[in-house]
Amino acid sequence: MRERKWQSRTKARRGERRGGERSARHEPSDHVVLYGWHTVTAALANPNRRIRRLLATENALRRLAEDGISIPVAPEMMRPDALAARLTPDAVHQGLIAEADPLPAPAIEDLPAAGIVLVLDQITDPHNVGAILRTAAAFTVAAVVTTARHSPEATGVLAKSASGALELVPIVIVQNLARALAGLKARGFLTVGLDSEAPDDLSAIELNLPLALVLGAEGKGLRQLTGAICDRLTRLDLPGAIKSLNVSNAAALALYIASRATS
Amino acid sequence: MRERKWQSRTKARRGERRGGERSARHEPSDHVVLYGWHTVTAALANPNRRIRRLLATENALRRLAEDGISIPVAPEMMRPDALAARLTPDAVHQGLIAEADPLPAPAIEDLPAAGIVLVLDQITDPHNVGAILRTAAAFTVAAVVTTARHSPEATGVLAKSASGALELVPIVIVQNLARALAGLKARGFLTVGLDSEAPDDLSAIELNLPLALVLGAEGKGLRQLTGAICDRLTRLDLPGAIKSLNVSNAAALALYIASRATS
Repeated sequence: MRERKWQSRTKARRGERRGGERSARHEPSDHVVLYGWHTVTAALANPNRRIRRLLATENALRRLAEDGISIPVAPEMMRPDALAARLTPDAVHQGLIAEADPLPAPAIEDLPAAGIVLVLDQITDPHNVGAILRTAAAFTVAAVVTTARHSPEATGVLAKSASGALELVPIVIVQNLARALAGLKARGFLTVGLDSEAPDDLSAIELNLPLALVLGAEGKGLRQLTGAICDRLTRLDLPGAIKSLNVSNAAALALYIASRATS
Repeated sequence: MRERKWQSRTKARRGERRGGERSARHEPSDHVVLYGWHTVTAALANPNRRIRRLLATENALRRLAEDGISIPVAPEMMRPDALAARLTPDAVHQGLIAEADPLPAPAIEDLPAAGIVLVLDQITDPHNVGAILRTAAAFTVAAVVTTARHSPEATGVLAKSASGALELVPIVIVQNLARALAGLKARGFLTVGLDSEAPDDLSAIELNLPLALVLGAEGKGLRQLTGAICDRLTRLDLPGAIKSLNVSNAAALALYIASRATS
């Protein structure tokens, strides 16, 4: 229920904006900043993404024209250093910055009971969440479920790390992850949590679709309540001295194993 | 030959320092900064790592004592914010910063012709190289080979992302990657490059040990000469719209596939 409420509020805000009056007092999440060639061109190719501004170098505009990529707004030509000055020092803009509306977030109840869903339990690093989205798109994951709190926004570094995947994988934002997992279970999803100290190896258990793979934050792992609600807790079988991977690497292995086991 | 020369110079410098006079004019690579619980405790546990200074909070010192971890230098107790002020704003020190000597880098000729070696062709992002080292340690990789130029130093963010793996996986630094690969081939290594546009799937080809898996930089991929010298170029079989992963995620999948195929 809460998820719906959240979504309705978001839709209402989006409706107001679309209605006209562009207020100078947007909340931080009212628009997103996308930069980098793959990230921005994927957004331009997504009919559900409303682009508000496109800032581009002369070279990038020429390349967009050469590639036949249509631009829904009048682009603002800028020098590379003027683009760079709008971003953090380590951001690589590759000649393109777009300001856009956030994508509509589907409600968890509206997800079809099919395929693989990735559930992220308070993973906060935007590089990691972006890399996870990219790998999720590569494995045709149906959706990524994250918590409203303790998750990075789908903008900036996350969008750049996702390398266009933000436009391909729906992100479902929930207030209460345990309740969301209970809902997925009730609709037939097998819910499997990753925990480096679990006794069972993910590649040794029986997996079936629809499947929800649940990943916890690095260091902290799955929260106790999240782990308790999963049907199974499993680990990745790692032969070396280090038993816990970077969370995006763990997600990649889990998706590879689950995709092969269920295809 | 060049690799040897490089190593000899490094050893010479290390020798000078060990001899006594601690100069205030160290070159940047003369010492490394390690921070974070796993990273620093792994360094403390490594008999080959010479720790010069240990800066720690009162809590971290208590926890080290509780865990029976011995400290080879007199620790300097500091408040958490004083530790944080020594690092970049997004660095998470978890109460521990160590200044240490770089680890000795083995020469490529000294690597045993056994197991799996990961070769990184100008991967520059320290988060990615750190995550790759961590996954390499999890898969008992024999060594990671990197180029002297266009590779991050084994310090700071890289060390933190490696989460202790820096102490477990030898890093071989070469001046010329094509020559290094030719040397590995001459010693019996099968050299397999990852390239998202290669026709063959890594999981479908025959693999054998010793094996060198070669990964290129994101975006650029393998350099032309690097790809040309590999015995095989292969891709990861990805069913979705995105065909290229974050390089550390690609490394994790490649290691998983290669480990299973050769064990």
